[in-house]
Amino acid sequence: MTNNPLYVEDLHVGQRFVSGPAEIGAEEIKAFAQAFDPQPFHLDDEAAKATLFKGLAASGWHTSALTMRLNVESLPLAGGVIGMGVEVDWIAPVRPGDTLHVESEVVEIAPPAPGGRRGVVVILGRTVNQKGETVQTNKARLLVSRRPSG
Amino acid sequence: MTNNPLYVEDLHVGQRFVSGPAEIGAEEIKAFAQAFDPQPFHLDDEAAKATLFKGLAASGWHTSALTMRLNVESLPLAGGVIGMGVEVDWIAPVRPGDTLHVESEVVEIAPPAPGGRRGVVVILGRTVNQKGETVQTNKARLLVSRRPSG
Repeated sequence: MTNNPLYVEDLHVGQRFVSGPAEIGAEEIKAFAQAFDPQPFHLDDEAAKATLFKGLAASGWHTSALTMRLNVESLPLAGGVIGMGVEVDWIAPVRPGDTLHVESEVVEIAPPAPGGRRGVVVILGRTVNQKGETVQTNKARLLVSRRPSG
Repeated sequence: MTNNPLYVEDLHVGQRFVSGPAEIGAEEIKAFAQAFDPQPFHLDDEAAKATLFKGLAASGWHTSALTMRLNVESLPLAGGVIGMGVEVDWIAPVRPGDTLHVESEVVEIAPPAPGGRRGVVVILGRTVNQKGETVQTNKARLLVSRRPSG
């Protein structure tokens, strides 16, 4: 990975990025859920056992937010990682103690319109746990700056 | 709105739900960004002015997470609000001091398979600010329990 910021001209379909790891703990899972997704399967170990999740699991939105942090750390885009929209699929539960990383691939590039300052780049991300299981996929449309002329 | 939990049999296409309000403050915006989306336009009032956002704006993932809390409060689904996946579009920036609410509509229902315990319900949500502007849309696929027989 380079430390130089990447402009839309620097990207190509098939280009890949891999993030570092992030561990997720039970206390973080419960704190996130308390603020944003207060449901028993995200809040309480005992109550979670009787639910579809069969044990404490992170809110899908917690997984998405953590994935965003890993993207910010691993996608060195000029101007930052700026999403217009995203499709997320939650594939498997994230459990306390899991360590996640993100594998990203550029799948589509729409160059800037003539005179435009930004293109749209579609990046497919897989969030993967320490067992190699994909817990989430997301397909994000990002605004990426063109290289300044001169 | 009813306090009785709703099963998939209780839902119909066109059914609507409206959440209560949630205010979002500058300190919350910065704290969320510090944890999950540490970029200048979400962290620092001054630095944000020179960016695409032209001022401090909430992370899109913060808006999504807050939308989830409003959904948990306003969608009285039996078994909880359990998403399989979602399509999110971030339409307009969320600013410090904004008050958001969510307007949801059932747009599709796939009943449980014979012998299955859950159907899939697609809900289109609009997150709206105090000026009536839609800041986010999201189309979520939710697992919804069938009414227990007997």
